[in-house]
Amino acid sequence: MSRYDRHKALLEEHLARLVKESVPRSLYEPLKYVLAGGGKRIRPVLLMLSCEAVGGTARSALRAGAAIEILHNFTLVHDDIMDNASSRRGRKTVHTKWDTNVAILVGDELLALAYRAVLQTKSPNIQRIAKTFTDGVVEVCEGQAYDKEFETRSAVTVNDYLLMIEKKTAKMVSVAAEIGALIGNAAPEGIRALRQYGHHVGLAFQIQDDLLDIMANEEELGKKIGGDLVEGKKTFLLLEALRTARGSDRKLLRELVANKGCSPDRIPEYRRIYIETGAAASARRRIEREINRSKQELHRLPSTGAQAVLEWFADMLLHRTY
Amino acid sequence: MSRYDRHKALLEEHLARLVKESVPRSLYEPLKYVLAGGGKRIRPVLLMLSCEAVGGTARSALRAGAAIEILHNFTLVHDDIMDNASSRRGRKTVHTKWDTNVAILVGDELLALAYRAVLQTKSPNIQRIAKTFTDGVVEVCEGQAYDKEFETRSAVTVNDYLLMIEKKTAKMVSVAAEIGALIGNAAPEGIRALRQYGHHVGLAFQIQDDLLDIMANEEELGKKIGGDLVEGKKTFLLLEALRTARGSDRKLLRELVANKGCSPDRIPEYRRIYIETGAAASARRRIEREINRSKQELHRLPSTGAQAVLEWFADMLLHRTY
Repeated sequence: MSRYDRHKALLEEHLARLVKESVPRSLYEPLKYVLAGGGKRIRPVLLMLSCEAVGGTARSALRAGAAIEILHNFTLVHDDIMDNASSRRGRKTVHTKWDTNVAILVGDELLALAYRAVLQTKSPNIQRIAKTFTDGVVEVCEGQAYDKEFETRSAVTVNDYLLMIEKKTAKMVSVAAEIGALIGNAAPEGIRALRQYGHHVGLAFQIQDDLLDIMANEEELGKKIGGDLVEGKKTFLLLEALRTARGSDRKLLRELVANKGCSPDRIPEYRRIYIETGAAASARRRIEREINRSKQELHRLPSTGAQAVLEWFADMLLHRTY
Repeated sequence: MSRYDRHKALLEEHLARLVKESVPRSLYEPLKYVLAGGGKRIRPVLLMLSCEAVGGTARSALRAGAAIEILHNFTLVHDDIMDNASSRRGRKTVHTKWDTNVAILVGDELLALAYRAVLQTKSPNIQRIAKTFTDGVVEVCEGQAYDKEFETRSAVTVNDYLLMIEKKTAKMVSVAAEIGALIGNAAPEGIRALRQYGHHVGLAFQIQDDLLDIMANEEELGKKIGGDLVEGKKTFLLLEALRTARGSDRKLLRELVANKGCSPDRIPEYRRIYIETGAAASARRRIEREINRSKQELHRLPSTGAQAVLEWFADMLLHRTY
């Protein structure tokens, strides 16, 4: 088993034992349903690897790892309400399987449990760790607020978008890496390097998500491509294409924005525009740049097994197809 | 100005300066609206008084006080969504003035800001303070879950109700007093006494709320009496009356439960039942018992000005008419 898979298994085992309560049932039944929902567990594994990369142990970072994963699930439960999403990872969302009230409360409790987990960390840096964690929560909320604002705002630039995903996605990856470094008692340069690594990897991850939504192989992706277009989401590709398209292509893009989406049969046409305007190539270049920068940050760290896994992880993001 | 009012003024001033951000506007505009909404600020003042009662300063407890008040407002914003409440303290609720998505996100951010504030506390006990705070959040969520479960559960006992208000209301008052004691570096007996003080005061406060809803003078209360009856809320009085009523009174009470409420013109009749079954007197006795117990806890503390204010505060709860 690879180091990544070992850490993931450790995390899954810890998460499964974490919640002992069972009443009130209306709270704990859906809450356990969420935590058992799987997922890639990227954030906690990065947190543990970061701790190892500065000389700490993965086990000392396990509770904080669980915390960051629970926190991530809190954002998913509440975002799914706001986005009217009926399924996630092939299962019904909480507000669909139960109701909105239950989902609000389950999200709230998840956030509290995330704090409970992070506060169990034994570290002289605990106050700073908890503060870093909190800064992450604040920015995730801000990122989600921007994301919702963009749905109804017509003038959104690529830079607006980058600010939004920095807050909504990259910050929490960066926080995970930084907390791992703090638990490992890293020197300031090590903390900074891992924070920046997380930042670049997080940005690359989100832009890759946007790219795959339209460019992936449907079977590999495991869902229909073009979902962002149908919903009229202001992705990196759409905003880049809007910036450079001229003539009838520009008109079609403006139509998509005005209509807040398109019918599925228009997807191939927009895909063509993304390719011909260079928006897709621009996304690929941006991903590559962020991944290269993330790897440069890693080179400031001593060469260890964990550092090698973090490098492999960045490369995997660059080449992932789902 | 009394010590209570001085602490309240200190808190208001701190809260007003707390949030410097203004964008994303969809997040910070409603968030500031909530924090400026006033209220009795009971929890933060109790926290500061508790700190003083064990020899600390009110100022050292100010950030934690702000934290507990922000946390309280988080629960109000989310509860108001779940309860479909359109107004609070004479102003529109967030999900009414904006929308449910905004209210979910504003509540989430308030919870994060509450943690940010409590984590600014300078204390060797910071990890325990943050853990105590978190235990409070978990129990508030559990209490709200029970409260919502009770709406559709027909068999609810007075003891079920007491467990629910212990979690939903009393716990956070108790946490406020305990955190004040922790910031004041109290000895274990002092921490325990103040925690228990908060517990009893919190229970008394909630039962008094139930009592005032039906027994208060409408003008003093500032809102229509009998709201709990109209909504069919399972209050201390309703559950006590259900336990002891016989004959036609019992039938009327069961009707109220089955119909999940009654029309406003039935209020005087239920009021009569609450009096004749002794439910109102039972509530008064329970409130008095909790207040007496809270005062006994205070007598374990050294006699100081803060201790006297905490005693006055308990008595004020006993005699409040709104």
